[in-house]
Amino acid sequence: MSADLLSHIRIVLSHTSHPGNIGAAARAMKTMGITSLYLVNPKKPIDAEAEAMASGAADVLHGARICASLAEALQGTVYALAVSARRRELAYDSADARGAVQALIAAARQGEVAIVFGTEMSGLTNEEILQCRAVAHIPADPGYSSLNLAAAVQVLAYEARVAALGAQPFPAADFAPAKHEDVERFYVHLEQSLLASGFLDPANPKRLIPRLRRLFGRAGLEQEEVNILRGMLNSFGKNT
Amino acid sequence: MSADLLSHIRIVLSHTSHPGNIGAAARAMKTMGITSLYLVNPKKPIDAEAEAMASGAADVLHGARICASLAEALQGTVYALAVSARRRELAYDSADARGAVQALIAAARQGEVAIVFGTEMSGLTNEEILQCRAVAHIPADPGYSSLNLAAAVQVLAYEARVAALGAQPFPAADFAPAKHEDVERFYVHLEQSLLASGFLDPANPKRLIPRLRRLFGRAGLEQEEVNILRGMLNSFGKNT
Repeated sequence: MSADLLSHIRIVLSHTSHPGNIGAAARAMKTMGITSLYLVNPKKPIDAEAEAMASGAADVLHGARICASLAEALQGTVYALAVSARRRELAYDSADARGAVQALIAAARQGEVAIVFGTEMSGLTNEEILQCRAVAHIPADPGYSSLNLAAAVQVLAYEARVAALGAQPFPAADFAPAKHEDVERFYVHLEQSLLASGFLDPANPKRLIPRLRRLFGRAGLEQEEVNILRGMLNSFGKNT
Repeated sequence: MSADLLSHIRIVLSHTSHPGNIGAAARAMKTMGITSLYLVNPKKPIDAEAEAMASGAADVLHGARICASLAEALQGTVYALAVSARRRELAYDSADARGAVQALIAAARQGEVAIVFGTEMSGLTNEEILQCRAVAHIPADPGYSSLNLAAAVQVLAYEARVAALGAQPFPAADFAPAKHEDVERFYVHLEQSLLASGFLDPANPKRLIPRLRRLFGRAGLEQEEVNILRGMLNSFGKNT
């Protein structure tokens, strides 16, 4: 899995009405590491609002290729995924966004691929869908499924990134976890402190120590935290 | 898994600068079936731009609760997930968005939960992060990780919806798949037609029929398609 796969993905926006949406889509793509943008017959040229919405993705916006047809935008690709909010009668291969990007990323290992978005109002035409290999469906609420165009680009680009790079291990905190024996020494210290303070009655201990072990065990103590807790216990001990 | 879990999720936006972003966030939430919005000290009141960006989610926007503090917005919740683009030194439980929503949805079975977003410019403060139970990180491109606020809301709301509802089986097409014996009869018909036309040389068949079987097998023929293909073969036969 590699970020190089993302360079094989082009985002195609067909007949977009509002330049602001093109700018917002450019930003959404770039945050996910996808920078190749194709515009099929945008209804208005890129303008100041498009640039404002693109924010730090002006390079993606200005690098966009303007095409006269979807066929031109798909030239050279080996796989095109159409994004649709509606079920398509003729779609022969439909899946939700997460499932659909699997085939897209597999194809991206063999060549250029595209994710294709239609107009803000009506999406892709049936003629456009038939030029694609599969249809991706964002599982929106049936009562209100109207994602903004850039929001739909964000979801698909995000799914493509996660599929291309795999689960990214989140960088572990720098804090060292406590060693088993140090945690056990803390529990001994805690028990002694609670006996000294009278909160733990040796004749009737109930489930106090197991409950406290459960709490601290769940928290996953760090080395420094064990030191802090034992320092606290020492400070309480001074007053008993 | 149920959509009811989504009604236990509140989206909290802290100190948002631009009302348009609040509107766009309302739209993003609603498309994923989440309708409870809390605003902590928004810098400007909800205005016409917020309404324009909310589109069909004006109900979510106008139902938003305005709070004086994050503590007030989190009142009654049993779990709060902070969304952060930056690594947080004090965060004791960090995960990517997909991993982080698992604990959120588990907690939503037991009570109200929150997903908390900071300002457009600087995100959440450390003081705000410490009021949350865990930190979610959207795995953006390190070179440009600046998601628009509503785009971040869209990704987290999408992940929460997928986690709450599970993989939604995409409705299968209404088209009936072809039966094995009908597909085999088609292959016999195809071979006879190619022999008749001369394209298949019985003395030197090469791998023609296996290649065609592979192609049609991969396509997964439907019943009606077999009829169309056999009709085509019959029509060609008339001219040979």
